[in-house]
Amino acid sequence: MRRAIAVAPDTRPAMYEAMCRAVTAGGGTVVDITEAEGLIWADPARVEAFPDLVADARQLEWIQLPYAGIEPFAHHLDERWTWTCGKGVYAPAVAETVLALMLAGQKNLHGYARESSWSGPVGRTLSGSRITILGGGGITEHLIPLLAPFGCDITVVRRSSEPFEGADRTVTTSRLHELLPRTDVLVLALALTDETAGIIGGPELAALPDHAWLVNVARGGHVVTDDLVDALAAGAIGGAALDVTDPEPLPAGHPLWSAPNCLITPHIANTPEMGLALLEPFVAENVRRFCSGEELLAPVDVALGY
Amino acid sequence: MRRAIAVAPDTRPAMYEAMCRAVTAGGGTVVDITEAEGLIWADPARVEAFPDLVADARQLEWIQLPYAGIEPFAHHLDERWTWTCGKGVYAPAVAETVLALMLAGQKNLHGYARESSWSGPVGRTLSGSRITILGGGGITEHLIPLLAPFGCDITVVRRSSEPFEGADRTVTTSRLHELLPRTDVLVLALALTDETAGIIGGPELAALPDHAWLVNVARGGHVVTDDLVDALAAGAIGGAALDVTDPEPLPAGHPLWSAPNCLITPHIANTPEMGLALLEPFVAENVRRFCSGEELLAPVDVALGY
Repeated sequence: MRRAIAVAPDTRPAMYEAMCRAVTAGGGTVVDITEAEGLIWADPARVEAFPDLVADARQLEWIQLPYAGIEPFAHHLDERWTWTCGKGVYAPAVAETVLALMLAGQKNLHGYARESSWSGPVGRTLSGSRITILGGGGITEHLIPLLAPFGCDITVVRRSSEPFEGADRTVTTSRLHELLPRTDVLVLALALTDETAGIIGGPELAALPDHAWLVNVARGGHVVTDDLVDALAAGAIGGAALDVTDPEPLPAGHPLWSAPNCLITPHIANTPEMGLALLEPFVAENVRRFCSGEELLAPVDVALGY
Repeated sequence: MRRAIAVAPDTRPAMYEAMCRAVTAGGGTVVDITEAEGLIWADPARVEAFPDLVADARQLEWIQLPYAGIEPFAHHLDERWTWTCGKGVYAPAVAETVLALMLAGQKNLHGYARESSWSGPVGRTLSGSRITILGGGGITEHLIPLLAPFGCDITVVRRSSEPFEGADRTVTTSRLHELLPRTDVLVLALALTDETAGIIGGPELAALPDHAWLVNVARGGHVVTDDLVDALAAGAIGGAALDVTDPEPLPAGHPLWSAPNCLITPHIANTPEMGLALLEPFVAENVRRFCSGEELLAPVDVALGY
């Protein structure tokens, strides 16, 4: 059945056009919000426009958000509608960035990039390292195959201890503290919720070996920033590679910018160009499923908030 | 048969001890050079001590060098003896560094490491890229499995067109120029000889797409440095990640240090710590083969010079 889908807002032209193409490709018809049964949210930065827009909606059943993590929309979640998001969509690009950051830390690339003369040899091999990954979602699913050739020992930490494919072991979050001393690289790839905010603070950083690296591609709020600044300054850990920070953007002059063992990338695990190329076919598939009454991909649990 | 092996010089204690352990582990007996049938060269930096040392050798048949590339010893090569080197020994560590440098270039890590404030999104995915690797030795052999999960299109360029395992195609060096315009990342992992010195100069750099990255973990002399400086300044290529340079060490103040699209690591594709851990079991195996009259690993062709 051909169904009526709105694409809004239209403030980001490249995204608006890509999402309109996705609706058509998925077998939907692009319509105004007043007659829409589905809504594709097409500007991640314009959350404040949402209430007025849906105030005009009369037939709305389903809202597709473009985010992997939906915190910007958390206060708009409403059980009147079915919500889906971009969970897992960007995971292949983000997983690639995780490996880039892990290897950069091991090979001191952040340090060498800042040199202006020949310096001494620093570096470890990633092969055979003990990797602890917090989160059992799409990023982890795509990261593990990238790590496979390195023969690492991989532990996935998540809410359930159901074995994660490709991991050497899967444990629940309650066992995080016993794992930390046996971790060479700690990767944060979990959703931000009330329970996971600040999950890595002073005690956790102190429990890591002093050569361990922290790689965060999830959300800045997972890490207690001041504790990380202290741990880096004290050499309590080997270093940190952060694609997300708290606060974000990280203000100029913040001590993390000048920490020699810290590499900050400005939330580029997927860039808009990479992301849109991944989102367009995904939205087309969800539109197709909506039209044919199939189960939608990446549903949001309104009660859990992700 | 237990055979007599000298380890010399003894100027680098950690290496000297590791090589003595390797001789014993391989079933040899550590002896003075005057009675040695084999010699393990145990200080890469002390080439000038070689002539005097072997002047005392009466029984010498075999010399094991610690290098992957033996240029430092090239003028000492002598057909009176059988020579072996460390070709391929360090390849797993170097291959890991190649991937680190490739990903760093794609994700602009060299650029972000130099920032002191939040900046805009830059970055490409390595997945699906077209990779051209010059050289069909151990580094390439270990790099290709690391690249496998990325679904890249891999071309190996070497002296023979015999298919290289895991490559999408293998071609001879004579076809380099037709490949360059279809290359996203060009990796140099070949031996330095008269024929390969300067193999990447102005015409080759101009033939690459303007987003292409050059990764050199072989020898600085493969690249015409002044041409690379010009290509980087003109934006003729996307950037260069160099673990080796010409001259090496690269002097402070050299324009490559300040090129925003250049990442230089000081010949650390394998660090001494990584390298010795890989060399020790390798030398033990060659000692075992020498004692039992088997074919030695990593033979040097004295005529070819590598």
